[in-house]
Amino acid sequence: MVVKEYVTYNQVHKLCKEAAPRILEEFQPQLMIAIGGGGYVPARILRSFLKQPGSTNIPIQAIGLSLYETLPSTHPSASNTPGDVEQPGTKVTRTQWLDLTSLGEMENLVGKRILIVDEVDDTRTTLEYAVKELEKDVEAARQKLGYQGEKTVFSIFVLHNKNKEKKGHLPEDMLNENRYLAARTVGDVWICYPWEATDIDAHDELANKQGAK
Amino acid sequence: MVVKEYVTYNQVHKLCKEAAPRILEEFQPQLMIAIGGGGYVPARILRSFLKQPGSTNIPIQAIGLSLYETLPSTHPSASNTPGDVEQPGTKVTRTQWLDLTSLGEMENLVGKRILIVDEVDDTRTTLEYAVKELEKDVEAARQKLGYQGEKTVFSIFVLHNKNKEKKGHLPEDMLNENRYLAARTVGDVWICYPWEATDIDAHDELANKQGAK
Repeated sequence: MVVKEYVTYNQVHKLCKEAAPRILEEFQPQLMIAIGGGGYVPARILRSFLKQPGSTNIPIQAIGLSLYETLPSTHPSASNTPGDVEQPGTKVTRTQWLDLTSLGEMENLVGKRILIVDEVDDTRTTLEYAVKELEKDVEAARQKLGYQGEKTVFSIFVLHNKNKEKKGHLPEDMLNENRYLAARTVGDVWICYPWEATDIDAHDELANKQGAK
Repeated sequence: MVVKEYVTYNQVHKLCKEAAPRILEEFQPQLMIAIGGGGYVPARILRSFLKQPGSTNIPIQAIGLSLYETLPSTHPSASNTPGDVEQPGTKVTRTQWLDLTSLGEMENLVGKRILIVDEVDDTRTTLEYAVKELEKDVEAARQKLGYQGEKTVFSIFVLHNKNKEKKGHLPEDMLNENRYLAARTVGDVWICYPWEATDIDAHDELANKQGAK
């Protein structure tokens, strides 16, 4: 049986608040990249907590990535699978990518400190894709601009990391240099985020029963 | 004195839920465009309620728009203004625009039904900018593609519309055809959204005192 963990909006808000000081101190991000749809809410909340008095907000670029599953109809062996079973996909597709022309002085990522934000690190497939593709873009931009030595530093913030074997992998130096921050590490549970709830009061009740504060 | 209205996450969630049937029935959007940062949260929540069984999620494109105020230091007459006073800006700047190359069959907006999502319609300046610029892009794409007659239909969803004189204006046909939906119409109050709260428990208490359900 899949264990479900219910998370309320206020819990998400507090996880962002709790993480903000460390993000500010250690990552000092100049730009956030929110992986949509799951990264939208934490990125927006984080932006409030990362704002420094007298400074403008840290800009957010949203990218859209989704894990695609081969449709059951094209996969005979899966024909008995009920349509509602949640199956994590394996192929990442883009629904939105960066628009660097609108960022002004941030117009390229070269030499910047960039925080990638998502809701959950499950199989790590999406995060691997995001980091690899962003690094590729940065390297192409660096060569085009003829820059040298300007190191671009990516860090990651997720609300939850599932403690399980990962299909995707992150760069060694990111992990070694602690540029990966999960507000909570959980088992291989099904995390129910509030933005997926049909009945938010019932959702909160279930979360409260599990000891939500 | 500025009247503040506190809105909880669960209220935002319920406003989206309440609006979803009308959006599905009347607007039938094929794409959402979330105006960031304020549109991120309602767009993500709406996506859950707009999902049809057996269909994929409606894709979200995030755009980033912010109202810029001339900095006090470059504006001598404003030198006495305390830094913390909230002043709605008048000039819209882009921090992110569309990436239509990643949308697959949605690769252009021509002939599509598009829902623009933001948190609040205050002076209407941002919404006017978004609609005008999107219409411009669509017209350019239509001409480039040689399409004829495919009408692109924009609609708008905001959580709150402030009932006040607007600086920005929306197309006549959009208003006449009821393609503008505000979950709530309020007076010229200061709306405190939860994603801007430092202390979310105190925020919720203030909202509850105001009669939040």
